[in-house]
Amino acid sequence: MRLYNYFRSGTSFRVRIALNLKGLSYDYVPVHLAQGEHRQDAYRAISPDTLVPVLDVQGQPDEALLSQSMAIIEYLDETHPTPPLLPADPLGRARVRALAQTIACEVHPVNNLRILQYLGGPLGLTEAQRADWYNHWVREGLRAYERRLQDLQALRAASDLPPSVYSYGDTPTLADCCLVPQVVNGQRFGLVYEDLPLTLRAYEACMRLDAFERAHPRHCPDAQP
Amino acid sequence: MRLYNYFRSGTSFRVRIALNLKGLSYDYVPVHLAQGEHRQDAYRAISPDTLVPVLDVQGQPDEALLSQSMAIIEYLDETHPTPPLLPADPLGRARVRALAQTIACEVHPVNNLRILQYLGGPLGLTEAQRADWYNHWVREGLRAYERRLQDLQALRAASDLPPSVYSYGDTPTLADCCLVPQVVNGQRFGLVYEDLPLTLRAYEACMRLDAFERAHPRHCPDAQP
Repeated sequence: MRLYNYFRSGTSFRVRIALNLKGLSYDYVPVHLAQGEHRQDAYRAISPDTLVPVLDVQGQPDEALLSQSMAIIEYLDETHPTPPLLPADPLGRARVRALAQTIACEVHPVNNLRILQYLGGPLGLTEAQRADWYNHWVREGLRAYERRLQDLQALRAASDLPPSVYSYGDTPTLADCCLVPQVVNGQRFGLVYEDLPLTLRAYEACMRLDAFERAHPRHCPDAQP
Repeated sequence: MRLYNYFRSGTSFRVRIALNLKGLSYDYVPVHLAQGEHRQDAYRAISPDTLVPVLDVQGQPDEALLSQSMAIIEYLDETHPTPPLLPADPLGRARVRALAQTIACEVHPVNNLRILQYLGGPLGLTEAQRADWYNHWVREGLRAYERRLQDLQALRAASDLPPSVYSYGDTPTLADCCLVPQVVNGQRFGLVYEDLPLTLRAYEACMRLDAFERAHPRHCPDAQP
């Protein structure tokens, strides 16, 4: 497999984690977003929406270029079921997907590079206004994530289960694949997480796993300071 | 089942479509977003992130409040498999999910009510600037959707298959549940779709189905002109 991605892209980071958790090796193909490499013709031929990541699953039963990080991770989970990244029961799956989508549909889309560039370019916002924008939506989203974790822990406590190690239960899931890159991105922007104890605990548990650590932007071949 | 939702919310509209496609009846509980009803304590107890929709699946095998529209639709598809809203094969599922996420992760999040309110409030943008913002991201996203449909049609043509009736194949999927509300929302903002023929064809095929028409905001009990 071949992963077209960028070290600092949160959605790329999600897929790197999932590939590592599944024990799947892949070729790392860097696409330099900050230099606009994704908008050049060579990459357009690979990614019609000019976004990263794209997973080329050549050599697998399917020959295809897959896009959208959550769709890619669900595909990996269906085609390589061990270890599972979603619970076996529909309700558990709905809860893990809702956690993942809290990040992927509420937080990340309003704070990615192209949005920040549009705020600074066509809208002419100052650096401080862009920082306020970023902090507002990331904090709003991560607080919602924390409340979800609180509700889930209360359900576990009611069934005499110990607290979750990760976002949902004792193994990392799709939710953690989305959470960790968002937390790491927030760290880069100086976000403080002191009022998000369950979220931070899940993040820290993940980062003790080699699959998450190896996927971190700092270990990517295209990493820059 | 009970659906907490708002007539004009695109994510609510998605779930109404899926419930109708599955032939599932539900109680419609309106939550007046424009009046801030979602931020009041009564609704906070139901939805920790104060978002619509929430599906209360009381009376089903699970007793739970489900949130995040795509997670809800996948849950409905797993617990009520007929008619399916995702293809049976992993590659087809990945493609339908990628289409859905093109809307749900790239377009909708940057154009929903709370974002437009923040642009007008704290950032003090003019009406015209907000309209430009809206049009820019919706057009960008729908063009990406159109390119995906072009690629999928080319694959079908290469296998001597006729063009898709809906976004993916001959039955409506999760992708259509996401597409149709976005198109309807764009119509309200005066968006022109003339350069999106495949997207518009899929939209029109959907709107000929009673399940989509009945879910339209204009038929909701809380609809306003």
